Amino acid sequence: MPDNVIYLDGNSLGAMHRDVPDALADGLGRQWSRDLIGSWNSNGWWRLPAVLGDRIGTLIGAASGQVICGDSTSVQAFQALLGAARLRPDRRLLVIDRGFPTDQYLADSVARLLGLDVIRIEPDGLTDELARRAAVVSFSLVDYRSGELFDAAAITNRVHRGGALMLWDLSHAAGALPVELDAIEADLAIGCTYKYLNGGPGAPAYLYVARRLIGQLDLPLTGWHGHQQPFGLTESYEPAASIERGRIGTPPILSMLALQAGLRGFDEASISQLRRKSLALTARVIEFADEWLTDFGVEVATPRQPERRGSQIALRSPHAYPISQALIARGVIGDFREPDLLRLGFAPLYLSHSDVVQAMTELWQVLDSQDYLDERFQHRLAVT
Amino acid sequence: MPDNVIYLDGNSLGAMHRDVPDALADGLGRQWSRDLIGSWNSNGWWRLPAVLGDRIGTLIGAASGQVICGDSTSVQAFQALLGAARLRPDRRLLVIDRGFPTDQYLADSVARLLGLDVIRIEPDGLTDELARRAAVVSFSLVDYRSGELFDAAAITNRVHRGGALMLWDLSHAAGALPVELDAIEADLAIGCTYKYLNGGPGAPAYLYVARRLIGQLDLPLTGWHGHQQPFGLTESYEPAASIERGRIGTPPILSMLALQAGLRGFDEASISQLRRKSLALTARVIEFADEWLTDFGVEVATPRQPERRGSQIALRSPHAYPISQALIARGVIGDFREPDLLRLGFAPLYLSHSDVVQAMTELWQVLDSQDYLDERFQHRLAVT
Repeated sequence: MPDNVIYLDGNSLGAMHRDVPDALADGLGRQWSRDLIGSWNSNGWWRLPAVLGDRIGTLIGAASGQVICGDSTSVQAFQALLGAARLRPDRRLLVIDRGFPTDQYLADSVARLLGLDVIRIEPDGLTDELARRAAVVSFSLVDYRSGELFDAAAITNRVHRGGALMLWDLSHAAGALPVELDAIEADLAIGCTYKYLNGGPGAPAYLYVARRLIGQLDLPLTGWHGHQQPFGLTESYEPAASIERGRIGTPPILSMLALQAGLRGFDEASISQLRRKSLALTARVIEFADEWLTDFGVEVATPRQPERRGSQIALRSPHAYPISQALIARGVIGDFREPDLLRLGFAPLYLSHSDVVQAMTELWQVLDSQDYLDERFQHRLAVT
Repeated sequence: MPDNVIYLDGNSLGAMHRDVPDALADGLGRQWSRDLIGSWNSNGWWRLPAVLGDRIGTLIGAASGQVICGDSTSVQAFQALLGAARLRPDRRLLVIDRGFPTDQYLADSVARLLGLDVIRIEPDGLTDELARRAAVVSFSLVDYRSGELFDAAAITNRVHRGGALMLWDLSHAAGALPVELDAIEADLAIGCTYKYLNGGPGAPAYLYVARRLIGQLDLPLTGWHGHQQPFGLTESYEPAASIERGRIGTPPILSMLALQAGLRGFDEASISQLRRKSLALTARVIEFADEWLTDFGVEVATPRQPERRGSQIALRSPHAYPISQALIARGVIGDFREPDLLRLGFAPLYLSHSDVVQAMTELWQVLDSQDYLDERFQHRLAVT
């Protein structure tokens, strides 16, 4: 981490593990340039999607053979939603949350392709009646704006009582808090790896499919890597019997090698240790905000109960955008989400309590000095 | 390139450009680890799909603003086929070649989703009647097995006379021979970048959409990066007006940085220069095979006319698999394709005439000595 930076955006792009440069140097200097095409066998490139899937699985409560890594989160969301909907062909409804836009866009796309309807709700608004009508219920476990954490076990249970399938988007949860996919009997899950999992910019996503469903899952992106015999070169698609059917085309090996090294951070701390630290950090932020920031019209938009809180705190202010920019100018990197949220992520793997105290002090100074009114903080960047 | 290796598999995984390690070291050590999330703006990450798309465009005859880079070739094939079919809603037929299996699998998947039929033909078998019935005709410009090169202009013209749309898969052509997408008025194209374009293992693919069609193109993978306002976070999908609508999710930045460096090889030689060299190399191989290999029952499966030849030579033999392995043991790396092809690729950017003479000498020795009958060359590897 660079000097003079307090990084509260690990929920958007996780920091780099120290082993990544060596892993990539080996991937380039030895594997690609010297071993060339033979690396698919000799350096295990072919197995990477499953190897990484299993490693990610240990962080989300999935026994081996149920997670496959590859492609972008959007692609995995499309695969998972469409595949899941095909498992309930007699039902014509997708129920999704009003969370991350991509999940909504892709639900609309899937619905259009399969002739389904889409209903958007708040996760807590799921009724037994909706669960009886839905083919698939797809929610983010942690809301990307507010940081609200939903009750995965209770929701999955309600969905199953109604006969629907449950698909979880773990993007803002995995690596920061316990997820127990097998234990709660989730059906499918997807997630990105470049947030708390520290996989690097645009790192490949993953797809979880409960073992009981793998053999029936009928996915739309029938790339040759998911074929039972990828090198059989037959004309018709026969999906692999295993989770390998979730593979699509040739996976991005260099990005995968970075992810593999990034995941080593989790060899050093258990998810339950990380969760304890994360809750301590975010509790401190909430206390500080309640005591020192309300006078400036800043309010906490994240639930106060620990069991309803992810690993981020969203602060609401009409000046959230310029405040976020003034903080960045002081080396405290968080981000802004429309229309009025200052979003601060607390990656427990590499943030200390003193980082948090210092960040809050800077935030108070930005508000007290009204620094954020400066002209240079008003201009919206293309990407934030 | 390692010593004692003659690499005739650049049509499967291109060699590494010398600039790639520095590009990745900078991407990791400065961009990701120091500039962190700010890199999306300050280091141009957000623009990479379009920047790389335009650079690739110069190699396939596409003026700027028509090519976008990202995701796997399989994902792009799905996008392009489904999007193209939606542009001809009154037609119920996809016509595809019997080429690379993924293209066939994905055509079947698209057809199933849209309720279409699929007909598989040889590209030269396209009739006016099929062109009048088809929504989309999708062919590989170079056959991945035989290396046969099809007449892109004539086929595109026939397709258009019938009112269908033409989609080209350029995977085995781009970077090795001239492709003039704009000039022949192709509608869409896709291709991979890890073969002759040297992008690295699993490097991101690309999608070309003719400017006249971009505004109408209605793609199924509606990820947030393709949205008109990616950070507007609206509930419904409005595609970007430009080729940016071909973006899906967060792109694999590290793989893209490697591709960007790999493409620098094309700063040093024009496609027409490369084509001249490629044809000289493959002509030499055909002459050699005709003179020296027919006695061993090895025959040339690639067309002899230069205008019908890509940048590879396929040699047919019932012993093709063990021959390929015996060659690898001698440092001549080619590959095998079911059921009986020894496939040798000639990447003109980094292969010399003396490499080719030496490779052919080794091949003759393998056949003459019957080395390939050795037990150790019979075992099929998982990936070849």
